[in-house]
Amino acid sequence: MHKPDWIAVDWGTSNMRAWAMSDSGTILADVTSDKGMGSLTPDGFAPALREAIAGWHHEGVPIIACGMVGARQGWIEAPYAAVPCAASPEGFTKPDAGDLDVHIIAGVMQTDPADVMRGEETQIAGFLARNKNWDGVICLPGTHTKWVHVSADEIVSFQTYMTGDLFAAISGHTVLRHSVSGDDWDADAFDAGVADGMARPERIAARLFSLRAEGLLNGMTNATARARLSGLLIGAELAGAKPYWLGQQIAVIGAGGLSALYVRALQTQFAPATQVKADAITLAGLSAAYRRLKG
Amino acid sequence: MHKPDWIAVDWGTSNMRAWAMSDSGTILADVTSDKGMGSLTPDGFAPALREAIAGWHHEGVPIIACGMVGARQGWIEAPYAAVPCAASPEGFTKPDAGDLDVHIIAGVMQTDPADVMRGEETQIAGFLARNKNWDGVICLPGTHTKWVHVSADEIVSFQTYMTGDLFAAISGHTVLRHSVSGDDWDADAFDAGVADGMARPERIAARLFSLRAEGLLNGMTNATARARLSGLLIGAELAGAKPYWLGQQIAVIGAGGLSALYVRALQTQFAPATQVKADAITLAGLSAAYRRLKG
Repeated sequence: MHKPDWIAVDWGTSNMRAWAMSDSGTILADVTSDKGMGSLTPDGFAPALREAIAGWHHEGVPIIACGMVGARQGWIEAPYAAVPCAASPEGFTKPDAGDLDVHIIAGVMQTDPADVMRGEETQIAGFLARNKNWDGVICLPGTHTKWVHVSADEIVSFQTYMTGDLFAAISGHTVLRHSVSGDDWDADAFDAGVADGMARPERIAARLFSLRAEGLLNGMTNATARARLSGLLIGAELAGAKPYWLGQQIAVIGAGGLSALYVRALQTQFAPATQVKADAITLAGLSAAYRRLKG
Repeated sequence: MHKPDWIAVDWGTSNMRAWAMSDSGTILADVTSDKGMGSLTPDGFAPALREAIAGWHHEGVPIIACGMVGARQGWIEAPYAAVPCAASPEGFTKPDAGDLDVHIIAGVMQTDPADVMRGEETQIAGFLARNKNWDGVICLPGTHTKWVHVSADEIVSFQTYMTGDLFAAISGHTVLRHSVSGDDWDADAFDAGVADGMARPERIAARLFSLRAEGLLNGMTNATARARLSGLLIGAELAGAKPYWLGQQIAVIGAGGLSALYVRALQTQFAPATQVKADAITLAGLSAAYRRLKG
C-alpha cells in the first residue's frame, strides 16, 4: 500500500485524476476515474474519491483538489478570487468528507466582462512555478478556451471563448451534421477557414450554410467541410482575442490535437506560440497549492 | 367532395400543406399534414399526398408543389436554376406518382458563394406577383434565414445565414442550455445583444460564455440571457448581411415572432422593413407557377 505525503486531485466535468505524492515531488502512483463532476450529486464525491484512492494510505493525508469539483453543481462551492489575483489564490474550501482531509482550490472570476475559471488557474500556477517571472498570454484550448493575460505572477484578465462547445453543437445538432461527420481532415481547408473567419467573422453563419451548399452543388468532402468549420470558428476567435495575443509571448497549454490547431492558426498570424503539456503543468500547480497549505 | 381545378402544395421539412384551388383563385379547401420531407422516404410521398387530399377529386388535376419535396433527400430531386434568374423558374420535375399529376418547382442556386434555396423562390415569386416592379431586398427569417436581392423580377443574388439553426443548437446543446431555457423574454436585452453582435461579431463566442458567467456571478435571468443570445446572433447576421440591406427597400416575409425580431433589429439600424404574411405569399407563388404551367 502506497503511503503518500499528500494526494493531488484534478476533478473535471468528465473525469477525475488523482496522484499519490511524496513531499519531494515524486509520483508514487496515479489513478483515473470516469466519475467526473457532471455525473455526480454532492453526496457522490466522497465515495467516488474513496473508491479511486482505496489502494493508498490516506488517513490524515492532505488531499488538494482543483477543477469543477468546486463548482456550484460540484461537491461544495469554492469561492472565486477576483482578478487581478495570484494564479494560486489564497484559501481552500473543505467539504464534509468524513475521514478525508480534502482542500478545494478557489476558482478565479472577472466582473466585466463577466467570466469564470475553475481548474485553469491551477494550470497557470503550475506553468508559472516552472517559468519564473514569465509575462505574456496563456491560451488553454478546450470546450471553453481561455485566453489569460499574466504579468508579475498574477492573472491580470482573461476571456473565455466557447468555440469548442460551438463546434460540437454545430457538428452534432445542425443541418451540417451530415456534411462534417467523420474523422478525416483537410489541413489546407483549416488554414483557409482561419483566414476567412479572421477577416469576416460577421459572416460565419453564412459561411457555415455555404459548407452545406458546397456539398450539394460541388461535392465538397466531409474532411474539407469539417476542417473549414473548425478553421472558421477558431479564426473568428483569434480575431476577437487579438487584443490578448497580439505582440505578446504566447504559451498554449495542452498537447492534444486541438492545441496544435491553435498553434497552427496563430502561426498563420506570425504569432509563434510555445506548446506545453497539460498533465505535468496541472500537477505542478497542485504542488504549489500544497506547499502553500503546508505554509 | 371538392372538385378543384388545381391543387397547391407547400411541402417542407417538417410538414406539408395543400390547398384545393379554383382557376379563379378561390380556396375551396385546405389541409395540413405533419408528414414533412424529413420523415419520409422517396416512396412515402405519393401515399402521404393521396391521404392528405383524399377528400378532394384529384384525378387528372394538376398538382403544383414547392419546397424540400424537391430536395435530393425528397421525393425526386428537382434541378436548381442559377442566379440571376426569374423567381418562378422555368420547368417542373414530375415524380413517378401513379394517378397523381404532380409538378415540382425548381429550386434556386448560386455558385459563389455557394448557396441554395427550395421553397423560398416560390414565396419570392408570390411577393413579386403581388408587388409588381418591386426592387429591393427580401428577408425570409427561419432556421436558415435568407437575404435575397431582387431586381427587375429576378433573383440577383442571395445569402443564407443559419442563425436559427445556431440558436437552437446553442440553446439546446451547449453549456448555455440551462442559462437560456424557458419562454420568458427581455426585450431590452435583445436590443443590447443586437448592438453588441453588430459592433463586435468576432467576440460572439466570448459573449456567449459571458451569459453563463453572468448567471453564476450576477444572477442574470434566463429571460435576459435568452433574449441577449438571440440578439447577439441576429446582430452578427445584420453586420454580415449589411451589403444586402443597407439603403435598400426591405420586405420581411413571415408573420411570426422571429420575423418581428428581424424587423425590430433592422429598426435599430434605421432600416425600416415591411412585414408580410407568409401563407398568402406562398399560395400566390404557387398560383403563378400554375399559370405558367397552363401556358
